[in-house]
Amino acid sequence: MKIGVLGTGTVGRVIGARLAELGHDVTIGTRNVEALVARTEPDSMGNEPFAAWKQGKERIGLGTFAEAAAAGKLVVNATNGAGSLEALRAAGEENLDGKVLIDIANPLDVSGGMPPSLYVSNTDSLGEQIQLAFPTAKVVKTLNTVNAFVMADPSIVAEGEHTVFVSGNDELAKAQVAELLRSFGWRHIIDLGDITTARGPEMYLPLWIRLWGALGRGTFNVSVVR
Amino acid sequence: MKIGVLGTGTVGRVIGARLAELGHDVTIGTRNVEALVARTEPDSMGNEPFAAWKQGKERIGLGTFAEAAAAGKLVVNATNGAGSLEALRAAGEENLDGKVLIDIANPLDVSGGMPPSLYVSNTDSLGEQIQLAFPTAKVVKTLNTVNAFVMADPSIVAEGEHTVFVSGNDELAKAQVAELLRSFGWRHIIDLGDITTARGPEMYLPLWIRLWGALGRGTFNVSVVR
Repeated sequence: MKIGVLGTGTVGRVIGARLAELGHDVTIGTRNVEALVARTEPDSMGNEPFAAWKQGKERIGLGTFAEAAAAGKLVVNATNGAGSLEALRAAGEENLDGKVLIDIANPLDVSGGMPPSLYVSNTDSLGEQIQLAFPTAKVVKTLNTVNAFVMADPSIVAEGEHTVFVSGNDELAKAQVAELLRSFGWRHIIDLGDITTARGPEMYLPLWIRLWGALGRGTFNVSVVR
Repeated sequence: MKIGVLGTGTVGRVIGARLAELGHDVTIGTRNVEALVARTEPDSMGNEPFAAWKQGKERIGLGTFAEAAAAGKLVVNATNGAGSLEALRAAGEENLDGKVLIDIANPLDVSGGMPPSLYVSNTDSLGEQIQLAFPTAKVVKTLNTVNAFVMADPSIVAEGEHTVFVSGNDELAKAQVAELLRSFGWRHIIDLGDITTARGPEMYLPLWIRLWGALGRGTFNVSVVR
């Protein structure tokens, strides 16, 4: 499938590479293509320059947010949560119209220092804000409860025996996303309900952050057990 | 051990009975003892009247919040989160002084309808508010991520193979609480850190609520897996 992945940080790279590996036709989108490929220093998170990462991955396309969204029949929001709405506006409502939009971002607010808080929570969520801003897109919130490497390959934690959540208003869109998740290796997918249920997995992030600290590693997850 | 349990709803009853079963000397505390024992109708949650529940449990004492807190060497806050600070003020700072105070309440706000939101979250938590209001108590947040029956007997879910969290500033207090949790059957206890980490498990509640809806049952939990 043709998939646009918005975001060139760790999440965009790992998800984009995984989708390409699975045979999808991936275009990664960024704000400013020239500035991105010209960079020769690691980014603020210590990631290697995008151009270096991109070497040997000629099958993965690169374009603006709008070009990547237009290229995809399905679009993944893998941008930093703080800039997601702006990135999606740059992608353009017309390029998201009628498409499944997988939102894997978290509304982290680092302005108060570490650990981050959330800039929207409790009675609203980033997933809902995106659905409200792009009413003709079919927003499905998922994967935001694990780090990028676990998102793309759940088998690296507990042999894949753990849980991922989906929230969204469109049942067919959620079914399509669940199929994509299964192709990544996800076996335990819980449909929480409509997009308002995105508040749950987004508000889980503060617990994830403390677990990351307590466990000293980012490759973990929760398994819902009965 | 002498333990005061504040709260006569499901959580207070189940935890109180479990502690008594384990041989502890339990006093349950309530706002108004006379009003409580005079009630002959089920409460708003459909629980049988307290007096009927209490029959055959003569070993469990009953008193005011202050009497129960005074009686305990360790105190459990099992009140409704919305009324926890008021209940603890009624219990009295002098009756909590130097004691381990286990906070298992959630700051649920049902004023906006269902599902509830949280009346404190993100940059603060009920656990922190209690520690701030009662600086000489040793507050340990725990058990708020599961329902009352799972709290008291984790073996009813997945043979006890799931996780509970503790947050608190006092290491010895957390060790004592962990021992109590192990006596309930908890085998997987993760120490998240100081009392500010209570934001994590409290903000997990909105996910718990959606999982309750999706699973159609309250007897479940998460297992943290690596």
